[in-house]
Amino acid sequence: MSFFSIYKLYISSKRRYVRALKNLLGFIPGNLYLYQMAFRHKSVAVAVKKGAKNSNERLEFLGDAILGAVVAELLFKMYPYKDEGFLTEMRSKIVSRVNLNQLARKLGFDELIQYDSKMVNYPGKSSSLLGDAFEALIGAVYLDKGYLFTRNFLLNRIIKPHVDIHLLEQTETNFKSRLIEWCQSTGSEVLFEVTNNAEGESAKLFTVDAIIAGEVKGTGRDYNKKNAEKLAAEKACEALGII
Amino acid sequence: MSFFSIYKLYISSKRRYVRALKNLLGFIPGNLYLYQMAFRHKSVAVAVKKGAKNSNERLEFLGDAILGAVVAELLFKMYPYKDEGFLTEMRSKIVSRVNLNQLARKLGFDELIQYDSKMVNYPGKSSSLLGDAFEALIGAVYLDKGYLFTRNFLLNRIIKPHVDIHLLEQTETNFKSRLIEWCQSTGSEVLFEVTNNAEGESAKLFTVDAIIAGEVKGTGRDYNKKNAEKLAAEKACEALGII
Repeated sequence: MSFFSIYKLYISSKRRYVRALKNLLGFIPGNLYLYQMAFRHKSVAVAVKKGAKNSNERLEFLGDAILGAVVAELLFKMYPYKDEGFLTEMRSKIVSRVNLNQLARKLGFDELIQYDSKMVNYPGKSSSLLGDAFEALIGAVYLDKGYLFTRNFLLNRIIKPHVDIHLLEQTETNFKSRLIEWCQSTGSEVLFEVTNNAEGESAKLFTVDAIIAGEVKGTGRDYNKKNAEKLAAEKACEALGII
Repeated sequence: MSFFSIYKLYISSKRRYVRALKNLLGFIPGNLYLYQMAFRHKSVAVAVKKGAKNSNERLEFLGDAILGAVVAELLFKMYPYKDEGFLTEMRSKIVSRVNLNQLARKLGFDELIQYDSKMVNYPGKSSSLLGDAFEALIGAVYLDKGYLFTRNFLLNRIIKPHVDIHLLEQTETNFKSRLIEWCQSTGSEVLFEVTNNAEGESAKLFTVDAIIAGEVKGTGRDYNKKNAEKLAAEKACEALGII
């Protein structure tokens, strides 16, 4: 261990924080400022230069993109014979807010995150506080250590030990059945209707409307009719706030 | 230049293809198979093992994610005082199908792409053939050369010389006016209608339907009415194939 690491872990004024991060991450962080920012919810952020806030939202934007790339490669290589529709669906399952919140809780983020409990409904059921901080942390690791390090950290420390991809594969996010259930519970009629394509479009392309109580709530288009229905159902679920 | 490079460029049976790629990319490709796949539209793909096709769609999934990460970092560093909403919007402009199609055309992808002209409406106005191949190419470069190489390739060879980010910053992707224009040109009536929220939902949340010729073509929800309209217009544009 280098002198600098020993200093950070045992001598510096931030040694407790550094040790907590090391326990969480498995490595000694370089630029502490980035990690502190990753765990700072906007409810406790203050405005810095030009009115920008020092909250974790910008890091979340970056981390979300890095996580997306790492998971895309993982799935691409893990499932060499599955099509891009399957890969896209699997990725949304892995990076869903529900899954990231659970992961962040498992990893013990609760203890490091900073937020104003008067302003944030946490630990509320729909809170995305932890998942957001998790993505921000990935952004921080990326800026601190680069892509390869972040990729290996995510694969070896987070995904392989904590995410059961084969289990996720089996749990289907079935928007169509969810939509039908919701309509039954609210007593609304649901219909899937194939509409005519615009002039000049291939006859093989299906356009399907999901019609709930007489109103189009979602439209899906695909070369496969079933997929077009699925997409229409997904959009309708979104529009109706069934998530 | 190594003997292997000389062999590839001047001796191998694929030398013409290798030279065309080198002109396009600025480097000598390693695994040619990946690049051939990136330029193969599904209309000419054949089924390989277990029914998976050797088209560019899987590579497109991967390349889209890598491009997203590279552009996210670029914007994060280019605009240190802008919030994540701005960064997200700027990224969608850069990676939009319209922009990627244009880029791919500028770079001369037309000459390398393989597709069945009987099945594909290309060069049709709404065709995403080129943009899709562009993303697939990024996936191929990533698998062939790794992240850092791909990042530098994208930044130095593609984005810096060909994308005017400051210009994109000023051009607003105004889906509402685009939708209205389209409706005028086709003689359809367009309406934006605020609908009632479901029970138990916050009264502050607006749900807006974009209704074209009497049919709901898109629905947007936001705490800001203008934003809900914008989202509804965007979805309607998508559903109607106006890109």
